[in-house]
Amino acid sequence: MPSLSVFMDVPMAHKAEGSLLKSYKQDNHPNKMFLAYRVCMTEEGHPWVSPVVTKLRRQIAQDSSLNYEYTDVMGMKSFIQAALELLFGKHSQAIVENRVGGVHSVGDNGAFQLGARFLKTWHQDSQIVYITSFQKELHGLIFQDMGFTVYEYSFWDPTQMCMDPDTVINVVKQAPCGSILVIGNITDCKLTQCQWTNLMSIMKSKQIFPFFDITSQGLSSGDLCEDSRILRYFVAQGFEFFCSQSLSKNFGIYDEGVGLLVVVTHSNQHLLCVLSQMINFAHDLWLSPPTMGARIITSILSNPSLQGEWKHSVKRVVENIMLIKEKVKEKLRLLGTPGSWDHITDQKGTHSYLGLNSQQLEYLVKKKHIYIPRNGWINFTSVNANNIDYITQSINEAVLFTMDSKKYLQILTLAPAAPAPPRAPRMHRELSAVKAGLGCEQVGRAGGAGV
Amino acid sequence: MPSLSVFMDVPMAHKAEGSLLKSYKQDNHPNKMFLAYRVCMTEEGHPWVSPVVTKLRRQIAQDSSLNYEYTDVMGMKSFIQAALELLFGKHSQAIVENRVGGVHSVGDNGAFQLGARFLKTWHQDSQIVYITSFQKELHGLIFQDMGFTVYEYSFWDPTQMCMDPDTVINVVKQAPCGSILVIGNITDCKLTQCQWTNLMSIMKSKQIFPFFDITSQGLSSGDLCEDSRILRYFVAQGFEFFCSQSLSKNFGIYDEGVGLLVVVTHSNQHLLCVLSQMINFAHDLWLSPPTMGARIITSILSNPSLQGEWKHSVKRVVENIMLIKEKVKEKLRLLGTPGSWDHITDQKGTHSYLGLNSQQLEYLVKKKHIYIPRNGWINFTSVNANNIDYITQSINEAVLFTMDSKKYLQILTLAPAAPAPPRAPRMHRELSAVKAGLGCEQVGRAGGAGV
Repeated sequence: MPSLSVFMDVPMAHKAEGSLLKSYKQDNHPNKMFLAYRVCMTEEGHPWVSPVVTKLRRQIAQDSSLNYEYTDVMGMKSFIQAALELLFGKHSQAIVENRVGGVHSVGDNGAFQLGARFLKTWHQDSQIVYITSFQKELHGLIFQDMGFTVYEYSFWDPTQMCMDPDTVINVVKQAPCGSILVIGNITDCKLTQCQWTNLMSIMKSKQIFPFFDITSQGLSSGDLCEDSRILRYFVAQGFEFFCSQSLSKNFGIYDEGVGLLVVVTHSNQHLLCVLSQMINFAHDLWLSPPTMGARIITSILSNPSLQGEWKHSVKRVVENIMLIKEKVKEKLRLLGTPGSWDHITDQKGTHSYLGLNSQQLEYLVKKKHIYIPRNGWINFTSVNANNIDYITQSINEAVLFTMDSKKYLQILTLAPAAPAPPRAPRMHRELSAVKAGLGCEQVGRAGGAGV
Repeated sequence: MPSLSVFMDVPMAHKAEGSLLKSYKQDNHPNKMFLAYRVCMTEEGHPWVSPVVTKLRRQIAQDSSLNYEYTDVMGMKSFIQAALELLFGKHSQAIVENRVGGVHSVGDNGAFQLGARFLKTWHQDSQIVYITSFQKELHGLIFQDMGFTVYEYSFWDPTQMCMDPDTVINVVKQAPCGSILVIGNITDCKLTQCQWTNLMSIMKSKQIFPFFDITSQGLSSGDLCEDSRILRYFVAQGFEFFCSQSLSKNFGIYDEGVGLLVVVTHSNQHLLCVLSQMINFAHDLWLSPPTMGARIITSILSNPSLQGEWKHSVKRVVENIMLIKEKVKEKLRLLGTPGSWDHITDQKGTHSYLGLNSQQLEYLVKKKHIYIPRNGWINFTSVNANNIDYITQSINEAVLFTMDSKKYLQILTLAPAAPAPPRAPRMHRELSAVKAGLGCEQVGRAGGAGV
């Protein structure tokens, strides 16, 4: 055996997995709780799966006529078509004009990887990317590792406890011409129609390239059309853009890497050129994308009855989210927790800002073993009948204690951890949390200071 | 709408899909035949799936206790463990010493993508890669696009109609120190134990880094241990290496991207460092790999009875391959086709060299509509009872005609296509052939002259 290893100079890498999850895993407290899971959870604390998905999975497994051969590099054509129609509407002018297309990718990171590679090669005038802070760890690093300069921005104004539409308008005003603007959480950024028009006007004049991130169409308002309305408006206004479309969360197919990089261009000719380049990237990356998830989704979307079942299940999830948010707000009101908690119900979707400051969040983690990202952006589907009392009482405590910061400091330093209430359940599923709780602005691979 | 497109400078890319498949698709002849499919075919001309896979797919779909959440970035740990034990043996010293590990990847291209990225970053002394010609289009382009200098080599000696072990020995003799040697088709390169020892000795002295490509363990000899024997020998000799391990073909799970990048190091400490860097690459590429295929394979490998069923099915495939090769040779003998055809049965595995020259191959494509890569490396599982007569008669014709090249040229220029025999079936499955027939040395994205 040679004495020297080929790998002798390779250091241990900082893990992409944030420190919040690490702390959660290391915490032996029986009632520890993690509110930063990426996936939608059921009331029983399991990852949500649309019932029609389970049904289709069985049907597909029974079908002996199916061909499990490698797919085309571009992916399943029927899946791409169905996904595009879901996003833009069946009768979208851009679809009719054949200037919208997509490449079936391995999840949304795969879609961002494809898009970023393309922009690195073919958009060399500007290699500056603006990305919302909660997307930083997931997708910002893809751009960063490829050599782009990446800046974060956030719609959330922690002092006003609300989304601030001016943020993104100021970002594009200050951004160099030709910059790339990654827009996530499109349904919750509270821009009025007029503000969108203003934003688009600045973006057009400065040739800012939009890269949308649609991760859970339908799970925001419960209405699939409504959740992609702004995207359709961009198409109508003649924008060319990329969009990472993930269908994992709104179907509950998490581990099959179901994604799509959507490309909108001015003409079919441009579209074909862009897609041809993308195909070569995909060839190098994975050759052919996995199809099980895409097969299930295509079967559902191409059958009106199954599609109806799916839409119904999505609507139920949204109703539950709204209900749990109302309950959290109401419980805090009944506890007399100082402050207004309207911002909780003002926000849409599975994940929302809790609106706590860093001291309060630290209190929740250190004293109550409730793990929340440093920006307070939590998964509200992780709150359920079993833990809502513990969570709201803990928030109340955190707010009251931190009103007297001297007392707060004393308690943090000296007191043992408070005994946990009997009803708070232990969360068993830790896997997805590797990618969960990504709302923290300081999260980064090099720093490792994040969630 | 702005008048100028962001994409106005993006040209149409040369497709990775080779020209042989393109010609095949454009050919309207009812009896066209494609012998360059990448996947193993059944006697009925369908992609082969091990029956136990079909059974497990059903069982898994019925199991309501399963969790379909995102997996860890590294992938399914149980799958990685099972795959490593399959490759190195359950009691491998290197496994016991915790110096063998793997990252679950999206197929073998995903594994090569990970490995190449790592070597690009951490193996900067030499960025030269030697790769066998039939891997060029699939994996050579990954290195090439990343900036490596890529050279092709081939074990096959077309003049002697046999594998020439000296080729690879000459390659490593001439290669600069620290080069990367990609070794595919390990079971069929006909090196004796003594020649392997000699090769290893030169590789060690010149610090040549081995990157194995194990695509169909078991499908070569029918014996899983035998098919990875050389790899185990490299481990025993203290080599550090990477290995792309694909489990698609030997299970018949093609469209789920089931792969693994295997890492062998001198110590657990080095292994952990290497894997930690790999995880960051995987995070950027796809975040979490698809699991359906891995789930099926893990269930089979962890159950001795199911594993037995699977091994039996693999053995049957190999027996069929040997039988069909014998039949092709016998039919050519009965037809009195000039030349020796022993090389057909001397080669192992699904794909083997037919041993025809370029004129003969051109004759088969142009006159007989039998599509074969320019190096004559065909998928013998595509030959079956329905088409063997047409194929062997066509080979016989090709050999006879090209013995008089003047006559051959006349016929190629003047004569209409010969009527096809009634028994030759039409091949419907074209998808996988995007990646099929990759034996041609000239295949390249830029040139587009390949299969």
